[in-house]
Amino acid sequence: MSVTINADERIRHPGLRQRVVSAEAAAAHIRDGMVVGMSGFTRAGEAKAVPMALAERAKTEPLKITLMTGASLGNDLDKTLAEAHVLSRRIPFQSDPALRRAINAGEVMFIDQHLSETVEQLRTRQIPAVDVAVIEAVAITETGGIVPTTSVGNSASFAILAEKVIVEINLNQPAGLEGLHDIYIPTYRPNRMPIPVVTPESRIGLPFIPIPPEKIAAIVVTEKLDSSSTILDPDADTRAIAGHLSEFLLHEVAQGRLDHTLQPLQAGIGTIANAVLHGFLDTPFHGLKMYSEVLQDSTFDLIDSGKMTFASGSSITLSAEKYRQVLPRLAEYKPKLILRPQEISNHPEVVRRLGLICINTALEFDIYGNVNSTHVMGTNMMNGIGGSGDFARNAYLSVFVTKSVAKHGHVSSVVPMVSHVDHTEHDVDILVTEIGLADLRGLAPRERAAVIIANCVHPQYRDALQDYYQRAVQRGGHTPHVLEEALSWHIRLRETGRMD
Amino acid sequence: MSVTINADERIRHPGLRQRVVSAEAAAAHIRDGMVVGMSGFTRAGEAKAVPMALAERAKTEPLKITLMTGASLGNDLDKTLAEAHVLSRRIPFQSDPALRRAINAGEVMFIDQHLSETVEQLRTRQIPAVDVAVIEAVAITETGGIVPTTSVGNSASFAILAEKVIVEINLNQPAGLEGLHDIYIPTYRPNRMPIPVVTPESRIGLPFIPIPPEKIAAIVVTEKLDSSSTILDPDADTRAIAGHLSEFLLHEVAQGRLDHTLQPLQAGIGTIANAVLHGFLDTPFHGLKMYSEVLQDSTFDLIDSGKMTFASGSSITLSAEKYRQVLPRLAEYKPKLILRPQEISNHPEVVRRLGLICINTALEFDIYGNVNSTHVMGTNMMNGIGGSGDFARNAYLSVFVTKSVAKHGHVSSVVPMVSHVDHTEHDVDILVTEIGLADLRGLAPRERAAVIIANCVHPQYRDALQDYYQRAVQRGGHTPHVLEEALSWHIRLRETGRMD
Repeated sequence: MSVTINADERIRHPGLRQRVVSAEAAAAHIRDGMVVGMSGFTRAGEAKAVPMALAERAKTEPLKITLMTGASLGNDLDKTLAEAHVLSRRIPFQSDPALRRAINAGEVMFIDQHLSETVEQLRTRQIPAVDVAVIEAVAITETGGIVPTTSVGNSASFAILAEKVIVEINLNQPAGLEGLHDIYIPTYRPNRMPIPVVTPESRIGLPFIPIPPEKIAAIVVTEKLDSSSTILDPDADTRAIAGHLSEFLLHEVAQGRLDHTLQPLQAGIGTIANAVLHGFLDTPFHGLKMYSEVLQDSTFDLIDSGKMTFASGSSITLSAEKYRQVLPRLAEYKPKLILRPQEISNHPEVVRRLGLICINTALEFDIYGNVNSTHVMGTNMMNGIGGSGDFARNAYLSVFVTKSVAKHGHVSSVVPMVSHVDHTEHDVDILVTEIGLADLRGLAPRERAAVIIANCVHPQYRDALQDYYQRAVQRGGHTPHVLEEALSWHIRLRETGRMD
Repeated sequence: MSVTINADERIRHPGLRQRVVSAEAAAAHIRDGMVVGMSGFTRAGEAKAVPMALAERAKTEPLKITLMTGASLGNDLDKTLAEAHVLSRRIPFQSDPALRRAINAGEVMFIDQHLSETVEQLRTRQIPAVDVAVIEAVAITETGGIVPTTSVGNSASFAILAEKVIVEINLNQPAGLEGLHDIYIPTYRPNRMPIPVVTPESRIGLPFIPIPPEKIAAIVVTEKLDSSSTILDPDADTRAIAGHLSEFLLHEVAQGRLDHTLQPLQAGIGTIANAVLHGFLDTPFHGLKMYSEVLQDSTFDLIDSGKMTFASGSSITLSAEKYRQVLPRLAEYKPKLILRPQEISNHPEVVRRLGLICINTALEFDIYGNVNSTHVMGTNMMNGIGGSGDFARNAYLSVFVTKSVAKHGHVSSVVPMVSHVDHTEHDVDILVTEIGLADLRGLAPRERAAVIIANCVHPQYRDALQDYYQRAVQRGGHTPHVLEEALSWHIRLRETGRMD
């Protein structure tokens, strides 16, 4: 009974309390062939009960949907939905091995998008409309506004644009999250006004998603926690990467191009980017701010250390241990945090205006600085481009990081030509591996190759890349290549399981 | 003597009249090793006398400079400077065959940039500072402000950031150009405010480049005309491309996604994009506006027809015949035109806000919709990426156009895998050849391949691409490829001069 009492407290619009139903009953609003927009961004704040009910229902009746989210889902939901064959299309990001297998097998059509762009295409009806939105919330306000949980993602636009909205009130998401969110929807074209974010701290919207209460077709009460993040602890390589970047930034300060507060930081999700941010703890930088999409453990470590004064994101994704530390102190962190719609956290307009230092992870890069973030051997999707394109193109400084080798040294992360391009050399300023850092600003391709081969390549592969480059140069060209060998490292990897 | 009198009228700041010197004397401010920023964008409004004096001087003394401009130069200046070996580095665009040869031979380091970004990097001192700016002007105002001619390009930031400024007063550029320009420089980070352009018509700056008059080290009086554009007349293929696009846009109107005024249009420089714009004359669209970088013949034809009500750009580049028609009627066109710094004409913030329909030219594209705009056979630079990246990434609708074949049918513009990527599939909504149009919105890579092969490929190459794709799909993957054949069409072209 305590659940019911809590749920009533969380549903402050009294007329909506009667809409509380079971997950199965709520899921009945979703029919075969529909487009469903769900909350969830970097394993945080996803709707938890309704997708499980869909997977269950698919065992006994035909059920295929297009699923749009903010980004990746936690609680193995993409796995469960993929294995239940519920997904016909998936937009705009995922990071689940089972779903990835289905995508690479051609069973699920995956539309891999810049994370700021999905709702623009929805708003202009250039992709099919959302029939039902399913949004996890900590509360529904007196006016029917939805207060998201640990992520905003695309939830606001999904709820506003959908025919019907299902709200999952999660009693285990702390009520104290209310007030953290800043929901702003750009005015529609052709009358769009500037987005008024001028610092990471700018509050420009509402603390809830404003929708007419009558659109809320069902409310489900849940208790399942967010999944904790899967990042690994820093190791010698990631510490070396962080060290190279810190040294470079200190040089920029010494040159008078930056001061010790740097520019607002963005860091992609994952172990390496988190470790690099973590590395800022050991630097003299201070007064740091973040304007990023996901706030990971390192953000809170930097805030705790006093080095970071503010962080804006679209989600909070923490390790289990960090959740235990942060959640009880939410009130203390709240004045230093904002969660925004991913359209705003990643918006090119704001990224360019603020002048971010953007740190994203490469799967591989080539000797000219083109970056592959998504495709193994040019064909198999890993996770998706995510927000990296939103940030790298408009950054003050676009940094890509990766370890110089993978698979116990059998795969080089630096190759003659990337097998798939997500970020062209125009959008890549700095490359860092544990070997060293290449500063590519103002360099032509031949100069980029020299710096990358000298600074970033594992010694095991350096001679081979140098040999490739020299033979390419003999043929000439602005971006010299030996075309018939350009992908040979990937072909060897495919055929033998290794590049060496 | 009439030249002197005219020049005095054009130099309204009386103290500056005594700075008029010969081109050779002005060029003496430029020394070996310097960084020089010159006016000029799409063969319009380039400084004409000083670069010629530099080329002359290089015959008798060592002289190598880094040359930055807005974009391409007219009057064969890039050719003359390349052949005189004056250029050590060239930023951010060029389109001259002689310079291209020097770039591909590795003699000139070419830094190929998104056209909106050069001045951001200058302003933050991430690339070497401009020592001397050389700016063509129609006039110098009473306060020493520089009134540009037929382009703005990067001239404003070059003049503001340079140590010294040389002004070329061109008496044959009509005085009536004054008032056309809108010079706005974004406020510097970390205090940057929104750029207040909210419609193509928004005037947000000054009609001249404001610099302290004492920075003007020399003034040269010139009379040479701009080069006329090199675009070709529409032919059957470009008319077919225009027809497919018009038909598609009419369908969008019928679907209620656009009205008959469409969204503001951007079109890249060149024959095909100009022909496509020209094609709008034969459509029911009206009340059209442009927010583009270069205004070509088609812009004025559309204004004359009454179909276009306003055009914003960074330059005016016309055929000889069109110059003769337009220049005498400048006063009539002026209320319908603005010329802006290329940072503003191409700014991601504004492009996204206005929601442009962007039409740019591909050199080739692949079956998944990745576009190569710059590199022949993956190695040899043609012109550069120009503004296409600024526009395509942030467009309401990103359209790339090309003829389906080149070299009398021996080269297919649609290939298994592009040999160089300038625009990733994430940034490409619509592809058009004379064969047909592929609408890629909301499609996964396998679906994109089906539509592209069916709609855009020349019949001569369709079976071969279909065969490649089918064999790739048998191997699996989100973006299936047969890696060892992916570049085989380009390898064959390199070895035999043809793909067929």
